[in-house]
Amino acid sequence: MEDTATDSSIDGRVAVVLVSGGLDSATVLAAAVADGYDCRALSFRYGQRHAVELDAAARVVAAESARSGRRIVHEVVDIDLGRLGGSALTADIDVPHHADVAELADEDSIPVTYVPARNTVFLSFALAWAEVLGAADIFIGVNAVDYSGYPDCRPEYLAAFETMANLATKAATQDGVRLRIHAPLVELTKAEIIGLGEQLGVDYGLTSSCYDPADDGGACGTCDSCLLRAAGFRAAGVADPTRYA
Amino acid sequence: MEDTATDSSIDGRVAVVLVSGGLDSATVLAAAVADGYDCRALSFRYGQRHAVELDAAARVVAAESARSGRRIVHEVVDIDLGRLGGSALTADIDVPHHADVAELADEDSIPVTYVPARNTVFLSFALAWAEVLGAADIFIGVNAVDYSGYPDCRPEYLAAFETMANLATKAATQDGVRLRIHAPLVELTKAEIIGLGEQLGVDYGLTSSCYDPADDGGACGTCDSCLLRAAGFRAAGVADPTRYA
Repeated sequence: MEDTATDSSIDGRVAVVLVSGGLDSATVLAAAVADGYDCRALSFRYGQRHAVELDAAARVVAAESARSGRRIVHEVVDIDLGRLGGSALTADIDVPHHADVAELADEDSIPVTYVPARNTVFLSFALAWAEVLGAADIFIGVNAVDYSGYPDCRPEYLAAFETMANLATKAATQDGVRLRIHAPLVELTKAEIIGLGEQLGVDYGLTSSCYDPADDGGACGTCDSCLLRAAGFRAAGVADPTRYA
Repeated sequence: MEDTATDSSIDGRVAVVLVSGGLDSATVLAAAVADGYDCRALSFRYGQRHAVELDAAARVVAAESARSGRRIVHEVVDIDLGRLGGSALTADIDVPHHADVAELADEDSIPVTYVPARNTVFLSFALAWAEVLGAADIFIGVNAVDYSGYPDCRPEYLAAFETMANLATKAATQDGVRLRIHAPLVELTKAEIIGLGEQLGVDYGLTSSCYDPADDGGACGTCDSCLLRAAGFRAAGVADPTRYA
């Protein structure tokens, strides 16, 4: 495995990595492992209508453990975001489907699949676990290029979360730990993310990005996420390993 | 009921209020209602070892609804903070007991009852709900005087959370909503909080502050929280309505 670490002092340092089971977080997990971090993977059962992505998250973590030879602990935390409603991914709202990726530009800037404050909730749990573990590093696979409509995927949001986190914890305020939120994909296009993952040996056939998968996990091919993913594989010149329903 | 509102434009504006069932959050709920907000109460079942405080939260919300004549919706969200461990309130760690409140000063500055990143997690859920509701105001009963050992009870932490929140949501970034985190007790002593609650008609006999209550809900009288509460009633010159085990 290629080691992309630029700082050998991080070897073996514990990091919490948010893993959704999608393409982006699979790439981030591989990047954090390649950088030398001892990774702990964190996923959420958050009232989403399908368990397909949690199955994918488990496959992604198992594959990265096997490939790197380092056992990656994986926790799945139950949270009841669906109770608060407000999104096609947690409430009884239909996921929109399109004929083509070109249609996406015609949508309102924030799609109905946006889950209110989701990344803030996810990062808060990652922060809690990091403090318990004595870890200073949190990785998240957000991306401001393809998800520019999501406010909590932007660099200025991530910087503000990091500032808050460094005032929030015992570790940061008492023990001098400087918490860092790493978002290595934030400025990459989907094609660049796929290119990075290919270098790192990520098997994207294990991942699931679909907002509206079939019961057997097959991707719909027509939701925003499927269309962006397929366009990314085309632009990267990489064969799309997605199993469509 | 005395109306402490200084700005009549807030009358009927929706606010999310974090209600734990303790003395502080009962006071904050009453203060937010007195200020004219249309309150939604939010509590958490977060892996704590006792359900006593959720029973108290339900009593507090019901009493405030009855007293104000405004029905206050109360949501209890399940979150699995206990899975991530690290605190006497969620993990298998003994809650410390003391003979007297004077002993508390001898402790390390952050007690074992501190739950890592708890207020960040709670405020994140409040933020999610506020966005779904179209609310711009979140109330939390943190207090930097008696809980100065908790990093996430300090004004600088709350200000950083507010800054982050205003970058995190669709409402703040698209619709020009300015989210505010209100912590009206942050600079008050426990005696001052009790004095405020007495003015607002809070029935502290309904609240539960104990970290280690008996099965019937009776307070232990010797944990940090019981000692601070009892000292607060003494200093305020108010009869302590707490039912001790």
